[in-house]
Amino acid sequence: MTPIVANLFASLPPGGGAEQTQALLARPGLKIERIVSQGQTTPPGRWYDQDQDEWVLVVTGAATLKFETDLTPCRLGPGDYLLIPAHCRHRVEWTDPKVATVWLALHLDPPPAARAG
Amino acid sequence: MTPIVANLFASLPPGGGAEQTQALLARPGLKIERIVSQGQTTPPGRWYDQDQDEWVLVVTGAATLKFETDLTPCRLGPGDYLLIPAHCRHRVEWTDPKVATVWLALHLDPPPAARAG
Repeated sequence: MTPIVANLFASLPPGGGAEQTQALLARPGLKIERIVSQGQTTPPGRWYDQDQDEWVLVVTGAATLKFETDLTPCRLGPGDYLLIPAHCRHRVEWTDPKVATVWLALHLDPPPAARAG
Repeated sequence: MTPIVANLFASLPPGGGAEQTQALLARPGLKIERIVSQGQTTPPGRWYDQDQDEWVLVVTGAATLKFETDLTPCRLGPGDYLLIPAHCRHRVEWTDPKVATVWLALHLDPPPAARAG
């Protein structure tokens, strides 16, 4: 069977609503998601503290992340990617309110060594 | 430790050389690669026939894939993604010779049901 092609920029939600998360592929130990933000941020005082590692790529748009271990916010633009290890507390301080920020997020089980530690 | 940010469009190879493949993350059962093409194609008569599934996204540029099961070549542009199952024979018929085509490729172990079948 011939693979089906889809597009990451198809059916972008209209601005002004909630952040949209869509699973593109789910496997044991791995989930690929498209996340579309437009102005949304993590609620004040809240930190993400995840059991899985997250490899994240900003495909288009702009955002600012903050890590609990670093006072300086981290500005991200198109092509920027990083690995956020499990339980590395972080928050989204800002996403561009004027354009859609499309993230590709991979949620991964931590490697065996990290789980044992 | 604060995660380190890198950029997918950094240090693009100059056009005219070989296709460049760079591992961004390697885990048991998963490898994330950046592939940069500029005009390269799969040699005539050759098909890729891989033991792993490949989830692939064209981040920028343009390419044409061909699957052995389908006479019609499949044109890809920015944002297009697809899952190429293990042993789905395919070839790269064309990549844009004028600009870099940046692919994000995830090589994944097939899910347990597919391996059993």
